[in-house]
Amino acid sequence: MNFPSRVYINEVGPRDGLQNEKTILSSKDKAHLINQCIDAGYKTIEIGSLVHPKAIPALADTEDVFKQIKQAPDVELRVLITNLRGVQRAIDAGIKKVKLTVSASASHNMSNFNRRPEETVKNFAECYELATQNGIDVSGAISTAFGCPFEGDISIEAVETLVIEFQKLGIKELSLSDTTGMGNPKEVFEKCSYFKNKYPDIKWILHFHNTRDMGLSNSIAAMNAGIENFDASFSGLGGCPYAPGASGNLCSEDLVHMCEEMGIDTDIDLDKAIAIAREVEAFVGHKSESFMLRAGKVSDLSLELPEKQDN
Amino acid sequence: MNFPSRVYINEVGPRDGLQNEKTILSSKDKAHLINQCIDAGYKTIEIGSLVHPKAIPALADTEDVFKQIKQAPDVELRVLITNLRGVQRAIDAGIKKVKLTVSASASHNMSNFNRRPEETVKNFAECYELATQNGIDVSGAISTAFGCPFEGDISIEAVETLVIEFQKLGIKELSLSDTTGMGNPKEVFEKCSYFKNKYPDIKWILHFHNTRDMGLSNSIAAMNAGIENFDASFSGLGGCPYAPGASGNLCSEDLVHMCEEMGIDTDIDLDKAIAIAREVEAFVGHKSESFMLRAGKVSDLSLELPEKQDN
Repeated sequence: MNFPSRVYINEVGPRDGLQNEKTILSSKDKAHLINQCIDAGYKTIEIGSLVHPKAIPALADTEDVFKQIKQAPDVELRVLITNLRGVQRAIDAGIKKVKLTVSASASHNMSNFNRRPEETVKNFAECYELATQNGIDVSGAISTAFGCPFEGDISIEAVETLVIEFQKLGIKELSLSDTTGMGNPKEVFEKCSYFKNKYPDIKWILHFHNTRDMGLSNSIAAMNAGIENFDASFSGLGGCPYAPGASGNLCSEDLVHMCEEMGIDTDIDLDKAIAIAREVEAFVGHKSESFMLRAGKVSDLSLELPEKQDN
Repeated sequence: MNFPSRVYINEVGPRDGLQNEKTILSSKDKAHLINQCIDAGYKTIEIGSLVHPKAIPALADTEDVFKQIKQAPDVELRVLITNLRGVQRAIDAGIKKVKLTVSASASHNMSNFNRRPEETVKNFAECYELATQNGIDVSGAISTAFGCPFEGDISIEAVETLVIEFQKLGIKELSLSDTTGMGNPKEVFEKCSYFKNKYPDIKWILHFHNTRDMGLSNSIAAMNAGIENFDASFSGLGGCPYAPGASGNLCSEDLVHMCEEMGIDTDIDLDKAIAIAREVEAFVGHKSESFMLRAGKVSDLSLELPEKQDN
């Protein structure tokens, strides 16, 4: 196995985590968490969505949140968008990075956008143009890339069709999302190896969920395929509407911890990441999926021997 | 990455899972669960411990449980022991497989046995002799092989000292246990590669806990090092006394599910394994760590498209 010496972890909790919570945080509290993430060392943070407020009410205040985030020129603050209106809102707000998302699953995409996935990406051309004309960086995201709850398996071909269309637009950064936690390490290794080798100029970001406890395993597989960029969410927030009660995104602090234990540099302060997760639990008002919050770091351990133990 | 086409999963829940539960199951209920495990296809089941009843009260009835297990000549029913008294009890009960356990951590082992680990294994000689003279198969188990809550890192050398002593006894099957969930995939890959290559005649069994969510990742790493035998516990039962509230053993049905998704044969009926996990939750009276019980199998998914979705 080959592991990278360095990986980059993007904090997507403010978007993919909080959008699923019953408790809607105030703009101030969201900005506070994002500022803490900056302080912990995260260099890319997905701060919200610029979509119709009725679609995701919890993120309707993304512009207000953005205004309250502290200046940090080396930190990328990314928002998810799906159309031209989102680009216009990013321009108006002064946001410098947008992520255009499409589903690799035709039925999933038809349900969201009423058109086939490749048509959706073609239609992103006007978004890409308007954004880049206004100095906004654009990335692409392909959801359900490792399985769809309606269609089942998603082929490499289905994903590649969209990769090609995104490339035609000029996009050089793409994330592959296991939106509902269906991918497995073998599939992840195969898909990541294929795309990383065939499209070496694209910056690949992998976005895993931990729905069936394979989030870290899939990260290990992706790392072995040469992937160095990962999305994750504080406290592992972010449910799945198709599996109520299931766990959410790959948990940031658990991923940082695993990397640290493996000697893989993340430049993130793990103690601060864990402190953020604790604050997140307090904000959302329930226990989270964070293993760090329950078990603590391996490196914390240096216990006193008990008088007598059993086996 | 290289994955095996076949792995063997040992169900250790009746021992390493139930020993940590507040609710003590009746012998009948334990035997029922074990019989269900046989029916699900598990070929090795750790049914209990033959240690002093005060040490592990929950398993004091192991002989009674054994009596109520159905005949299954192709299934190995294993018990954990630590001394000669355990061997004698196994002989008296008609149990045909015992596992002798020692800790790779000197301080952990001193606390348990009041002697250094290698002395403990040397002292197992009389256990090995008595057992084999009575037709009982013996395996060895090295706990805290991937870290100790008192000592921290455990070196390859510390583990190898015990491997050599076990070999001198004549033992050909050894399990390496990450007793408190401290191992990481890099360490697991390195240790497994080392031992698998240097001692190819030993049947290696890996025993992971999911304390910090690395149970499946560590399994992936071990598989890539050529390991084919894994311990796991139904519902992921089995806490850690040093991290109260943390999750326990690697979860059997989650491991079977991951293997199935990856095309790795286990010969275990996943639906039956999940049904057992559900029964276990009912017996112990609380929610477990099983991801399968919360999210269901990937292959179960074939949902109706909702009228309208958001992102």
